[in-house]
Amino acid sequence: MKAKLGAKNCLYPMPTTLVGATVKGKPTFITIAHVGIMGLGSVSLGMNKMHYTNAGIAENRTFSVNIPSAELVKETDYCGLVSGKSVDKAALFEVFYGELKTAPMIKECPINMECRLIQTLDFPRNDVFIGEIVETYCAEDCLSDGVVDFSKVQPILFSVNDKGYWRLGDRFAEAWSIGKGLKKS
Amino acid sequence: MKAKLGAKNCLYPMPTTLVGATVKGKPTFITIAHVGIMGLGSVSLGMNKMHYTNAGIAENRTFSVNIPSAELVKETDYCGLVSGKSVDKAALFEVFYGELKTAPMIKECPINMECRLIQTLDFPRNDVFIGEIVETYCAEDCLSDGVVDFSKVQPILFSVNDKGYWRLGDRFAEAWSIGKGLKKS
Repeated sequence: MKAKLGAKNCLYPMPTTLVGATVKGKPTFITIAHVGIMGLGSVSLGMNKMHYTNAGIAENRTFSVNIPSAELVKETDYCGLVSGKSVDKAALFEVFYGELKTAPMIKECPINMECRLIQTLDFPRNDVFIGEIVETYCAEDCLSDGVVDFSKVQPILFSVNDKGYWRLGDRFAEAWSIGKGLKKS
Repeated sequence: MKAKLGAKNCLYPMPTTLVGATVKGKPTFITIAHVGIMGLGSVSLGMNKMHYTNAGIAENRTFSVNIPSAELVKETDYCGLVSGKSVDKAALFEVFYGELKTAPMIKECPINMECRLIQTLDFPRNDVFIGEIVETYCAEDCLSDGVVDFSKVQPILFSVNDKGYWRLGDRFAEAWSIGKGLKKS
């Protein structure tokens, strides 16, 4: 039997990210798990208009998406609990820059993507920032044969339904392969 | 040390979905993991323009997002391997409808969201469909105290980097809570 839950978003779990931007000349970070993939080269961020970081993304048209590992869960959660208006969240981390000079990235996060803003959607409560990825950095100990290995990255997966952070489990099947047996000959 | 990977999307793993639509009067489904959350009430789908399903979403302005469990991995992968142009993929499943008469849903999937199209973004290779969730259905045995329990749903998480399907691991921390200890008093 199915229960009707009303218009409840259940597109979870989603990868939890720390989004970086420059606001008033300084780096700041905000925890965002309402993210998305538009295409292979682009990402979206659904960010509440109340966040301090939004103005910096709009002004500089750049941002970073940093993927923290599970061992950074306290810092990651903290960055969603306090505002950059009153707290220097960049002080928690070692910050570095790549090609874009206004997209601060977090060295402690195994994956960093620097992005150029290409479009902004105006949602009732959210600015939705869509960015083109310019360069991606990955900790060398999170690669296997040159490919990002998420069992090493240990991303933090988020579900709003239970307000929880979840670990990634095992890789259990090959995409574009495991379903071949159902093809009619 | 960090390795530079070029402009590589590493915003994974993402929940794998089966997107449903009505094309030429019949239900069809396509596997999509390039999804996103714009806000609490909305989702996005980054769908290659080559997919048969896109025309139905554009025509009827409705679609469904079905979350398959790991035990449906073969069927889920298969729906991404074959085109609705030549194969009746709906025959694999028991199909049901909710409020929207052109958003077919899959009974075997523990979660179903029926959506109304509110915006379409034209990306170079993809149509990005943004939908407002109208109603959500969840298998009763996947709820705990009325809340969706993803340990019961067992979603299929996808990463393009390794072309793999991954399981969800354990819930290990409370969001908006675990980071409180870092707050200065």
